[in-house]
Amino acid sequence: MAKKTINVALIGQKFMGRAHSNAWGQVGRFFDLPRKVNLHTIAARDKAELEPFAEKWGWGQASGDWRELCENPEIDLVDVGTPNDVHAEQALALLEAGKHVACEKPLAGTLEDARAMRDAARKRKQLSTFVWFNYRRCPAMALMHQLVQEGKIGEVVHVRGHYLQSWGGPETPLVWRFQKKRAGSGAHGDLNAHIVDMARFVTGDEVAEINGSIAKTWIKERPHPDGKGKGRSDVDDQVVFLATFKQGATASFEASRLAHGHHNRNFLEINGTKGSVAFDFEHMNVLRFLDATEDPRIQGWRRIMCTSAGNHPYAENWWPDAHVLGYEHGFVNMAADIVRCLSGKRPVVPLPDFADAYETQRVLEAALISAKERCAIKMSEVK
Amino acid sequence: MAKKTINVALIGQKFMGRAHSNAWGQVGRFFDLPRKVNLHTIAARDKAELEPFAEKWGWGQASGDWRELCENPEIDLVDVGTPNDVHAEQALALLEAGKHVACEKPLAGTLEDARAMRDAARKRKQLSTFVWFNYRRCPAMALMHQLVQEGKIGEVVHVRGHYLQSWGGPETPLVWRFQKKRAGSGAHGDLNAHIVDMARFVTGDEVAEINGSIAKTWIKERPHPDGKGKGRSDVDDQVVFLATFKQGATASFEASRLAHGHHNRNFLEINGTKGSVAFDFEHMNVLRFLDATEDPRIQGWRRIMCTSAGNHPYAENWWPDAHVLGYEHGFVNMAADIVRCLSGKRPVVPLPDFADAYETQRVLEAALISAKERCAIKMSEVK
Amino acid sequence: MAKKTINVALIGQKFMGRAHSNAWGQVGRFFDLPRKVNLHTIAARDKAELEPFAEKWGWGQASGDWRELCENPEIDLVDVGTPNDVHAEQALALLEAGKHVACEKPLAGTLEDARAMRDAARKRKQLSTFVWFNYRRCPAMALMHQLVQEGKIGEVVHVRGHYLQSWGGPETPLVWRFQKKRAGSGAHGDLNAHIVDMARFVTGDEVAEINGSIAKTWIKERPHPDGKGKGRSDVDDQVVFLATFKQGATASFEASRLAHGHHNRNFLEINGTKGSVAFDFEHMNVLRFLDATEDPRIQGWRRIMCTSAGNHPYAENWWPDAHVLGYEHGFVNMAADIVRCLSGKRPVVPLPDFADAYETQRVLEAALISAKERCAIKMSEVK
Amino acid sequence: MAKKTINVALIGQKFMGRAHSNAWGQVGRFFDLPRKVNLHTIAARDKAELEPFAEKWGWGQASGDWRELCENPEIDLVDVGTPNDVHAEQALALLEAGKHVACEKPLAGTLEDARAMRDAARKRKQLSTFVWFNYRRCPAMALMHQLVQEGKIGEVVHVRGHYLQSWGGPETPLVWRFQKKRAGSGAHGDLNAHIVDMARFVTGDEVAEINGSIAKTWIKERPHPDGKGKGRSDVDDQVVFLATFKQGATASFEASRLAHGHHNRNFLEINGTKGSVAFDFEHMNVLRFLDATEDPRIQGWRRIMCTSAGNHPYAENWWPDAHVLGYEHGFVNMAADIVRCLSGKRPVVPLPDFADAYETQRVLEAALISAKERCAIKMSEVK
Repeated sequence: MAKKTINVALIGQKFMGRAHSNAWGQVGRFFDLPRKVNLHTIAARDKAELEPFAEKWGWGQASGDWRELCENPEIDLVDVGTPNDVHAEQALALLEAGKHVACEKPLAGTLEDARAMRDAARKRKQLSTFVWFNYRRCPAMALMHQLVQEGKIGEVVHVRGHYLQSWGGPETPLVWRFQKKRAGSGAHGDLNAHIVDMARFVTGDEVAEINGSIAKTWIKERPHPDGKGKGRSDVDDQVVFLATFKQGATASFEASRLAHGHHNRNFLEINGTKGSVAFDFEHMNVLRFLDATEDPRIQGWRRIMCTSAGNHPYAENWWPDAHVLGYEHGFVNMAADIVRCLSGKRPVVPLPDFADAYETQRVLEAALISAKERCAIKMSEVK
Repeated sequence: MAKKTINVALIGQKFMGRAHSNAWGQVGRFFDLPRKVNLHTIAARDKAELEPFAEKWGWGQASGDWRELCENPEIDLVDVGTPNDVHAEQALALLEAGKHVACEKPLAGTLEDARAMRDAARKRKQLSTFVWFNYRRCPAMALMHQLVQEGKIGEVVHVRGHYLQSWGGPETPLVWRFQKKRAGSGAHGDLNAHIVDMARFVTGDEVAEINGSIAKTWIKERPHPDGKGKGRSDVDDQVVFLATFKQGATASFEASRLAHGHHNRNFLEINGTKGSVAFDFEHMNVLRFLDATEDPRIQGWRRIMCTSAGNHPYAENWWPDAHVLGYEHGFVNMAADIVRCLSGKRPVVPLPDFADAYETQRVLEAALISAKERCAIKMSEVK
Repeated sequence: MAKKTINVALIGQKFMGRAHSNAWGQVGRFFDLPRKVNLHTIAARDKAELEPFAEKWGWGQASGDWRELCENPEIDLVDVGTPNDVHAEQALALLEAGKHVACEKPLAGTLEDARAMRDAARKRKQLSTFVWFNYRRCPAMALMHQLVQEGKIGEVVHVRGHYLQSWGGPETPLVWRFQKKRAGSGAHGDLNAHIVDMARFVTGDEVAEINGSIAKTWIKERPHPDGKGKGRSDVDDQVVFLATFKQGATASFEASRLAHGHHNRNFLEINGTKGSVAFDFEHMNVLRFLDATEDPRIQGWRRIMCTSAGNHPYAENWWPDAHVLGYEHGFVNMAADIVRCLSGKRPVVPLPDFADAYETQRVLEAALISAKERCAIKMSEVK
Repeated sequence: MAKKTINVALIGQKFMGRAHSNAWGQVGRFFDLPRKVNLHTIAARDKAELEPFAEKWGWGQASGDWRELCENPEIDLVDVGTPNDVHAEQALALLEAGKHVACEKPLAGTLEDARAMRDAARKRKQLSTFVWFNYRRCPAMALMHQLVQEGKIGEVVHVRGHYLQSWGGPETPLVWRFQKKRAGSGAHGDLNAHIVDMARFVTGDEVAEINGSIAKTWIKERPHPDGKGKGRSDVDDQVVFLATFKQGATASFEASRLAHGHHNRNFLEINGTKGSVAFDFEHMNVLRFLDATEDPRIQGWRRIMCTSAGNHPYAENWWPDAHVLGYEHGFVNMAADIVRCLSGKRPVVPLPDFADAYETQRVLEAALISAKERCAIKMSEVK
């Protein structure tokens, strides 16, 4: 019999540290789960700063060294919420220590790191791995997956994704997200990672070929965060690329941090032979759906408010209809699904593991190669 | 010096009990407040059912008798999350016992009850009262208040509010919300209460006259919740009414539980001599604003995504720009403002107390009189 | 056998003179009609100014005296596009002279005039009368009528109409539309006339009672159009009123010329027991439809682009799908339906005659009485 | 002194024959022009079918042989509204005969044809050529051009265009638009032609490089229009490609005839360093504009209803504000600008001539090469 409590540890106390702490804290309040979640330990480098964070979010203990988590037999699952360049080191050690691992996306800063993580996970089949592609668990996105998988739009012919933000102007300081050695890439790994994951998740198909790509750095130096001078910003500000899926669908993906008017425009539309579906995170509670098999006289895009308990994924755990959800709810829903998986149950919609996230990473890598070599790239050419 | 911790108690464990528990639990995680919130005690009739609820939400104690809260000197603030017909009895006793009181809206089921509550609060000036008109604390609604108060739309000439839902069809069981003796009214007190409060909040003006009203009960009997037969539904399903504000603005208010296509359409638009503002809760992160003083060539409704830290009310406490908020965030924001008030600080935007909510209740009452007597009613005629 | 050509005459050369001239000129180009339309004569007071207008729009003759139309036996139909205060005089003379009459809306400036027109039409049953409630013939509005009449939204429970404009600020000159003796009323007859007509048209129901009303003149003097001084503006700038339909539906109607952000916001939404429909002229090609009998999982407002030939009213006469229509197309569609009626055929959707428009006028009159007397008015009390 | 009348002839009587006939007929009614337009002659192969068309649309004469137009000295301008494969033959002969030529888009079915047309126009500098990229003359698109040219969005960094339709399913018959020898290409020349033209028009910049492309034919055979069997459909159903503009902007263009939910979704968005603009033909009267230099507190996408006389291009020629325009108005506006050019005046916004349209054609050609060769193509490599 599975023990009743899952002891969770978290590494990281910044933006994702906060979002994940909230998820682990809220999940037991809104979901009736087979196992109880215990916020066992949080780890981060600056232990002095960590103490009040741990108390605020209800972590039982705080540690200044993430390696201590490996050694603590009480801990079942470690949630890795650190910058991309340390994911591999941490995940490998944690798997080695027998911990289940939930890693923030993208899987890693480099394809080599990602591959090592996938391989390590493959070797430890009794352990579960998860990657925080949180948007899969917005109810509207989960419904999009279900409708497409049920054949409601027929065969997929066109995938159109863009993830547009506008915070990356020249005044924005040189935080780690603008440094290649820390982040691996810029808008690409941060934003395209999501829409590639979403497109794979919804279609259930894989990219066969990259048909062209542009990766562009507009702003080449940025002020240091401490206000002292400027430094080199060496990641992309924009990456757009075209792809063909194995079953034939044509796809475009666009990511930018320089698209004024868009703060978090995570958009995916899919056209099929029988209909279309579209999602826009800035109106995250809504799925748009067009059923082309209906009488043309009353055919039109429907705005489905995905908040109806019993009808929409995760909706029964929250509020009455149209008492809408926000950003962090996707993380709470994901925490619930992780707990279900670790209890031998099925998640509401599929959860990405390291192997799955590695496929997304390969697509991203291929897009960068295509941009550099100015040619199309078959995915079979990318290891 | 104020003591560091506020001990909060809550009465109620249903829909509002859940929303308020969440607010008290989350407020310390997202806000840096002058006093710490302690979830001291929750009270509700069914103590056996209450125990797991209390544990889940982190309440220190559970009580089967709300009167115990009056007697406990540790409790500073009692949050009343019960049906409308018991608000007065509970609030009066709590004020008498020296507790600050935060009461769910509407203030009461009857104007008499509401008046008694206002009078009791008036006599205990050292105590604070609050009413959970939560929508005031959606960032977009708070910004609407600020812009109108700053004169951005000039003088108000037209107020248009509607709060439309669709759950009240003939199959919906006869829960307390459909019983006049429990709820006082139907859509009117439930929904019009909010839009009247919002209109008063945003304009800063008071209703001078009700110019006509329709209150209609379409569904006169409903199945009992236990499935055994039917009973009488004696509250309104729709109330629409017209009003004139003291400074001259023309207003319409419409509430319905029979408006298909609207699940929680809490809508308010205000037209002024220099511009207009509009809010729709189903897109709660957005405020629409039209500045009629701008060059007509580029004039148009702006969709302001009210999530920018430092620019929009409450935004700095949550997530990055356009990582949108949901329904319960209004409650958390309100909990934060209550704590600020109880610490001698100012709320981000004004909080309604019993006297303020009583004015809303008078407007609702006048609308019902107007509907019954088929004539216009001056507010000065309503006690 | 009906003669092949209909000789049409028009009185008026201003805004409506232009819209109607265009309609009569275009109808034969886009519609295949049983009779050919001949633009026989245009009449207006200033003959010198009229000549180039007549030539531009293809009118065969120009006349400085509308009474000449009565005397010309060639003319079949006279289109009255003059200010409201002369409709009755002209229409009565034209009917007396045996002409079919198509009159601009509202039917008249006063209820007395309107009644005289209805009575005159009633006496000449062999003649046809028409009133230019042009919005009935926007494809989306015509489809709304069809869907409601087919029972697609079940029984009507709520009608919500508003017609909002913003051109009536204090700088707008004292044109005839602001003079009671010319226009009869302001926003009321100009704008509420349309939405009352549309609500009657779509529901097929009649108003039983006015439940309250506000008529307000904010701007009491305006600059003369010649720039010399100011004069009294004595019409309403805003009229809002509530009504109950015979079959029980609750209704609200709002008209304003002071609603910034709205230039021609002619909006009607109808909620029924099985669904809802909504129209907004500023997106005139779209009908929104919610079918509440569908699976809630995929239920949502549909945006129907009403441009599909064979599926949507009038669409086959124009362009390919989503090659959208504009304002004047409603007039052309109406001209086609008038020609069909005068050829013994049926219009695509019902055309309002004087008797029908008189019912709209009675509702408007009752609303003004209700505003003045500050009480509800049963329609049976209005002659 | 220029002669007063322009004698116009038109070749073609199908969809475009109708749209152009309407434009030449309406232009004198809505515009006050320096020269009068005379609908002199219409030519098409089937003269018997042509006679009633000519009469309906007011053409003075009908000809069964377009070559007769060359020989008629009265004719000033010939409007070519035929399939793409005959544009070159006709335009060359007409220029040779000394006629001004207005040609339907795309300029030709092949780049060779297009080049011949550009060269012929270059040699006859006293003659004017025009290409019917009609969307430039939608008021919202014309305003988009003006705002970008005035620097309102700063430097352009991202161009995103898509033109999506859904009429091209497998049941759609094998009309000329699906035959390569007639049409040259499918969605590409039909739809991408427009958005490439629009992007060049609005930015004032030229494409430097194609960075990748996919051209896909999903449906390889279609029923013959006569219902007898099937034939080969050899044009693309979808073409998507990436481009880089000379001044550095990243661009994506997507055309499809298989995108359910889109009937005529001609969409262009441009992000600049100071703001963004977006146009969607399905809401053709609206331009969306985001000014990123404004106070973030009230920043948001504005919906500009481009119908205000004196403020928006072409608006003073039509109706009052928000009495919206439709598809054919762009053609009428273009006819007006052609007449202005032929009278020595300036068009409201620039008109494309053969040389300009040839640049668009080169971009389209390069995209097809890129798709075929699976690599990036510099525009300098395309003759």
